[in-house]
Amino acid sequence: MDIFEAIKKRRSVRDYLEKEIDDKIINIILEAAREAPSASNRQEWRFVIVRDKITKDKLCEAAKNQTFMKKASAIIACCAQTDNHVMTCGQACYPIDVAIAIDHMSLAAVELGLGTCWIGAFYEDKVKKILGIPENIRVVELLVLGFPRNKPTHPKNRLPFEKIVFFDKWGNSK
Amino acid sequence: MDIFEAIKKRRSVRDYLEKEIDDKIINIILEAAREAPSASNRQEWRFVIVRDKITKDKLCEAAKNQTFMKKASAIIACCAQTDNHVMTCGQACYPIDVAIAIDHMSLAAVELGLGTCWIGAFYEDKVKKILGIPENIRVVELLVLGFPRNKPTHPKNRLPFEKIVFFDKWGNSK
Repeated sequence: MDIFEAIKKRRSVRDYLEKEIDDKIINIILEAAREAPSASNRQEWRFVIVRDKITKDKLCEAAKNQTFMKKASAIIACCAQTDNHVMTCGQACYPIDVAIAIDHMSLAAVELGLGTCWIGAFYEDKVKKILGIPENIRVVELLVLGFPRNKPTHPKNRLPFEKIVFFDKWGNSK
Repeated sequence: MDIFEAIKKRRSVRDYLEKEIDDKIINIILEAAREAPSASNRQEWRFVIVRDKITKDKLCEAAKNQTFMKKASAIIACCAQTDNHVMTCGQACYPIDVAIAIDHMSLAAVELGLGTCWIGAFYEDKVKKILGIPENIRVVELLVLGFPRNKPTHPKNRLPFEKIVFFDKWGNSK
């Protein structure tokens, strides 16, 4: 499928088949992350792949018991090994750069018939403790990955084009 | 092309043909942004599309005179109309969510034979003044968009897989 189809098909999937995912698939998805761009090519992203049941259950608990996470094939802790560099525009590099890499993974997953869900509702200190992540590393998101139980077909609820796109000046819709 | 090909082909393009880009193409690319996911579907992203020469020149100056920007067909100011909500994990939603939308655009551009470059080295206050962007809006990135003069073929310099991907625990490469 082309990129537009992948973008259109991508949904946040919260209902998974309990099915193992093998290294080959994990590697393809992580390779999509590795190819991402980053500010000054800093590549601060780091990923911890979790597939064993006990650790997934612990991560679910650290993520406010979003129980669907337990059935996913993998949970990827998307981290940053960062010097906290801030760009001239005032934004830190690392949340943006990790997000780009995660987006690559979530689109790659669609191409492979897999589903994902970004999780930001988790206690960072608990996740760090579970996965042995050092103090100086940030955990930016958890990415849930697995085989969707159903083909997600619910419509996307999005703001209309003219509310988010302006031409030449702020507020100038066409 | 499939998503993996688009990801592999995407490069930061800094050499453009001086060529106009029409509304139809702009709309396709912005539609890819509009389809992006965001935390709790907040959709805080806003985009100002700039194609006129005088304003592009001003934005170039606000971006520390990265002169290649002047030749690009468009510069998209990627903004956030945000309540600065912070997720449980400690990360603000808006930089991550705007980054996802920009990534969608940069991959859509590859599919259309266009090039992009993310710009974080700009003075936010100057960009706001040029585009009439209100005080409470953040400008997260400028996305340069245009027709690449050459097919970018330089290799990507990326950290090896085992430096960025761990299994089960932090630091555990396979």
